[in-house]
Amino acid sequence: MSYTKTWLNYQKLANCPAEIAVSLAEQGPVAESIRRELELAFDAMYGVKPVFADTVKDAALGVTFCCDAACGLGEEGFRVEAASGSIRVVSGGQRGLLYGLFAMLEQLRMGKTDFALEKIPSNPLRMLDHWDNLDGSIERGYSGKSFFFRDNEMTVTGRIRDYARMIASIGINAVCINNVNVRGVAAELIAQRYREPLIRLARIFEEYGVKLFLSLNFASPKRIGGLDTSDPCDGKVRAFWRERIADVFENIPNFGGFVVKADSEGEPGPFAYGRTHADGANMLAEFARPYGGIIIWRCFVYNCQQDWRDTRTDRARSGYDNFIGHDGEFAENVILQIKNGPMDFQVREPVHPLFGGLKKTNMMLEVQIAQEYTGQQRHVCYLMPMFREVLDFKTYCGAENDTIADIVSGRTYGNRSCGMVAVTNTGDDENWTGHDLAAANLYGFGRLAFDTSLDPEEIAEDWIRLTFGLNEKVLGNIRRILMMSWPAYEKYTSPLGIGWMVTPHTHFGPDVEGYEYDRWGTYHRADHMGIGVDRTPAGTGYTTQYNEPNASLYANTETCPEELLLFFHHMPYAYVLSSGKTIIQHIYDTHFEGAEDAAQMLALWRELEGLVEPAAYARAEERLAFQAEHAKEWRDRINTYFHRMSWVEDEKGRKIY
Amino acid sequence: MSYTKTWLNYQKLANCPAEIAVSLAEQGPVAESIRRELELAFDAMYGVKPVFADTVKDAALGVTFCCDAACGLGEEGFRVEAASGSIRVVSGGQRGLLYGLFAMLEQLRMGKTDFALEKIPSNPLRMLDHWDNLDGSIERGYSGKSFFFRDNEMTVTGRIRDYARMIASIGINAVCINNVNVRGVAAELIAQRYREPLIRLARIFEEYGVKLFLSLNFASPKRIGGLDTSDPCDGKVRAFWRERIADVFENIPNFGGFVVKADSEGEPGPFAYGRTHADGANMLAEFARPYGGIIIWRCFVYNCQQDWRDTRTDRARSGYDNFIGHDGEFAENVILQIKNGPMDFQVREPVHPLFGGLKKTNMMLEVQIAQEYTGQQRHVCYLMPMFREVLDFKTYCGAENDTIADIVSGRTYGNRSCGMVAVTNTGDDENWTGHDLAAANLYGFGRLAFDTSLDPEEIAEDWIRLTFGLNEKVLGNIRRILMMSWPAYEKYTSPLGIGWMVTPHTHFGPDVEGYEYDRWGTYHRADHMGIGVDRTPAGTGYTTQYNEPNASLYANTETCPEELLLFFHHMPYAYVLSSGKTIIQHIYDTHFEGAEDAAQMLALWRELEGLVEPAAYARAEERLAFQAEHAKEWRDRINTYFHRMSWVEDEKGRKIY
Repeated sequence: MSYTKTWLNYQKLANCPAEIAVSLAEQGPVAESIRRELELAFDAMYGVKPVFADTVKDAALGVTFCCDAACGLGEEGFRVEAASGSIRVVSGGQRGLLYGLFAMLEQLRMGKTDFALEKIPSNPLRMLDHWDNLDGSIERGYSGKSFFFRDNEMTVTGRIRDYARMIASIGINAVCINNVNVRGVAAELIAQRYREPLIRLARIFEEYGVKLFLSLNFASPKRIGGLDTSDPCDGKVRAFWRERIADVFENIPNFGGFVVKADSEGEPGPFAYGRTHADGANMLAEFARPYGGIIIWRCFVYNCQQDWRDTRTDRARSGYDNFIGHDGEFAENVILQIKNGPMDFQVREPVHPLFGGLKKTNMMLEVQIAQEYTGQQRHVCYLMPMFREVLDFKTYCGAENDTIADIVSGRTYGNRSCGMVAVTNTGDDENWTGHDLAAANLYGFGRLAFDTSLDPEEIAEDWIRLTFGLNEKVLGNIRRILMMSWPAYEKYTSPLGIGWMVTPHTHFGPDVEGYEYDRWGTYHRADHMGIGVDRTPAGTGYTTQYNEPNASLYANTETCPEELLLFFHHMPYAYVLSSGKTIIQHIYDTHFEGAEDAAQMLALWRELEGLVEPAAYARAEERLAFQAEHAKEWRDRINTYFHRMSWVEDEKGRKIY
Repeated sequence: MSYTKTWLNYQKLANCPAEIAVSLAEQGPVAESIRRELELAFDAMYGVKPVFADTVKDAALGVTFCCDAACGLGEEGFRVEAASGSIRVVSGGQRGLLYGLFAMLEQLRMGKTDFALEKIPSNPLRMLDHWDNLDGSIERGYSGKSFFFRDNEMTVTGRIRDYARMIASIGINAVCINNVNVRGVAAELIAQRYREPLIRLARIFEEYGVKLFLSLNFASPKRIGGLDTSDPCDGKVRAFWRERIADVFENIPNFGGFVVKADSEGEPGPFAYGRTHADGANMLAEFARPYGGIIIWRCFVYNCQQDWRDTRTDRARSGYDNFIGHDGEFAENVILQIKNGPMDFQVREPVHPLFGGLKKTNMMLEVQIAQEYTGQQRHVCYLMPMFREVLDFKTYCGAENDTIADIVSGRTYGNRSCGMVAVTNTGDDENWTGHDLAAANLYGFGRLAFDTSLDPEEIAEDWIRLTFGLNEKVLGNIRRILMMSWPAYEKYTSPLGIGWMVTPHTHFGPDVEGYEYDRWGTYHRADHMGIGVDRTPAGTGYTTQYNEPNASLYANTETCPEELLLFFHHMPYAYVLSSGKTIIQHIYDTHFEGAEDAAQMLALWRELEGLVEPAAYARAEERLAFQAEHAKEWRDRINTYFHRMSWVEDEKGRKIY
């Protein structure tokens, strides 16, 4: 095999039962997967082939799967009870049994024999978005090429099944396989050209409880339909979509729906015809509804031709400004997909204000485990602590359950179409995610989307044990690396929430002024005296998009969380933070600390030589060594920039160039 | 025809002679061109077909071409005497007659009938380097695609002949057709694959007195020769080159030699084998010598992996440091090709110190009329005034004739292989040079290389008359545009010789810190208090590469020419220039002035609507309008950067963002 098994790399366990009996009455693709997974796992873990029987009473290990619609767990929830060589997995549906199976295997692999688990997934949709292009490239992909597409053809290989197993094991139930920027032949994914391989792919996904989604191009009526318009209210356009959408749902099994990036960064949309986002989304939703299909509409809409001289326009405002007026207008099977922050996946942003604003609209939280702005899988940056903070954010939207986790799970307003989605970080690299440690973000996202109450550190521990085994030293060191990685990355890159000090286009490596005079609305406004963007009512007014008390909290420099101070305020370098340090000294200190942290992560990893599988050790060692060097480059460029600009010396007299 | 005739667009003249007789005894390709050019020109100018006869006595206009080896003009010099309907063109060779013919036509077209001209070309070599790639792209090309190559094939079309006519008319006698970065199949230009079209191309060039050169890849022995080394001292490598070079010279007519970029910016060279530039160049020269061939070796060698933190390494030093120790080692048929400045074709640089350093080495001055750093032919920037300053620069090399013009013409040390070369600005655009006004740089370079004593303004006038006709308003306005264009570009871009504030890679548009932390050795070191690079003995010591008194002149802030002050010194913004202005105020003022100049150039051009051919008017109007807007962007970004950095207000209170 040309790729690793990640956290599904089952190892032989001690204390093997002599025989294993399994009772599983269900039939169908998912039940078949459960049987196959059991055989595969028990063979690897115990060297035992399970016997499928009506009763498991006499076996050394007996596993009973029970599908019970009245169990109160729903079709995806499960209960697993293990005691004295008997394990019982209960769910209201086969998918719940599958998730229960993987949960059971995890426990067994971590050495537990007696345990009880009950999980009902927090989010209805737990999704991965691939930004894969049909030529095989991946937009913002850092793990090789696509395993879905190559040279404008689909590649439905054995790897697809392993991918489906992997994501099902963490509870993912939806995947969009193509880039939201739908270019070239990708528009034809909804036509006949790719029908046969799409059906094969969808069947594999179906076996693992995963619905297939496609990104579509809103201009398809013109692009592939031969029409002279793509106006969503035009009769011919409606007829085009009715026929296309029906054709897709009727022929591709287990099809979920469509993802649409419209009127954003040059993509076509309803604006060209004087129509609203709701007009566009609802038209598509109307034709998907008979099939239970969903339209996922991205809210990443902003003016990407801003003049840097214009200090009134604020990209942070744009998502809210574009969509808040349409609350309640979207159909029941439309979901607005909203990024965690108002800018674009920076290492630190406030939470997107739309979550607290929309009340009558389905919402989905979009995060990015593809580390576009967080080191591109050449730096380790474990993102679950960031997502944890986002999920816990109180929106004060007026309802009882008012956190982001509440809202996107449907608890707040009773939505049934909602959830979490990650721009994913996989590719055809041997280890799937470029950096071996980046797999923790894939694993972690799935686990967190399934159970938004989880602790990031515990998720990390589970992932480490399942990937690297149960050695305590390995566990301890990798846990430290993961848990210190996001803070370290934030320290040596962008201070106090300002963001964007990256090389234009690639978004890799430092360039303090790289976006400062560009058209993307991403400015830090640093000068001799200070830095930051005034987003208070006296500035762009962005803070008013939050509910109180958040709006006032952010607008006031005294109460604004310091890690976001420069996001919300233009502050003098001399301003004293709660630490007693000035902002300029904080910049110097955090950059020196961050580079030291990166060096320490490398040292922690190097202590594991011989304890971790050699190929994986070497791959990660190379990247951590790169990171340690690159962190110095970040440190020096940023410190030099601010030293030259501010003319303030480092209190500790360290070398600033 | 899909392209214009530029300055060879002959118009009907008044006072046509009734008949024209021409006496031209010579035979051969160049003589045939003279006959063809005469027929073409006299038909267009007078509607008369010239009669070729032994004597021209009885014709209304009689033109006699006389080739006389004893005339003292050499093979390329000429004398033209016109009086009372009789014109006599004398040269020591057919190429001189051809140049005399074009000179005569220019005079006639400018309305002169009685005149006397005598010209002996200043420079033995007057060359154009194309950076054309075989896929049809042009590195740093701003006028469309290559007209030599397309899709890895050669395109020897009718346009090649028109190109040869055009450059012969301004005295160019050598052309290298392919990029000095010899990538991919370009290495095979010296093999059989392209032999047939190269022969056809060389024949066309030969008809116009132009020698064909090729850029070669120093690693060819490995790349296309199947050897395991390209060591210039290896016997097999020498045999490879001996055979290849002989084959090229013996089969391609009128072949001139090779251009080599070695050990520079990633190109292969002799360093890999512990050999010197002289080892590499002389080996090639040895095999070219029997054919009168020349090896042109570029001196653009520097460390392109510099650490920005390293303030001792100085890219400006590198050409001198790499080559000065090898003075006298190069073979007689090797020429070192040296850029006008030590960095890379910035709008303002000091003259390259190698010119004053080397004494026993053939040298060629390389300039760039492809406007890589001077507006990419979307801005008008007439470069002859810059080249004039370079040619007039006194090197104090110890000889009597010590200017750059003296040195590269061979006057100083008696060299016979030397001259001037321009990286050219042509492509397959309709107007050849992208911007119609950029053709002035092509025309001007040829004229100036032929006669280094010419005044840039007079060259401009000739070009305007030949291109746009004799209207005084047209002449006056375009002359003003051209003559103000270089100073204007310098004003709104880079102040006081600092250079490099451009967008990385593309080199188009402002980005003050774009190269500040990069690896290319191009830094301005701006901080709150000042800006500039200390290249005095207290700094990098670059000034010591000049002869006295230049070395001291540059090293002393009091005597350093102000337009180069920041190139040589790190200066406080508060430093007062001879104008009475501080440096920071100078920056503000020049940037406002430069943008105003750009607006004025547009206004001057707009006054010519209806007086200039409509298509050319519209093309240039669009570009000048773009330039006026883009100059504001330059102004605002640079002023804002320095205002933010220095915290000094503009004395005049103008808008700085």
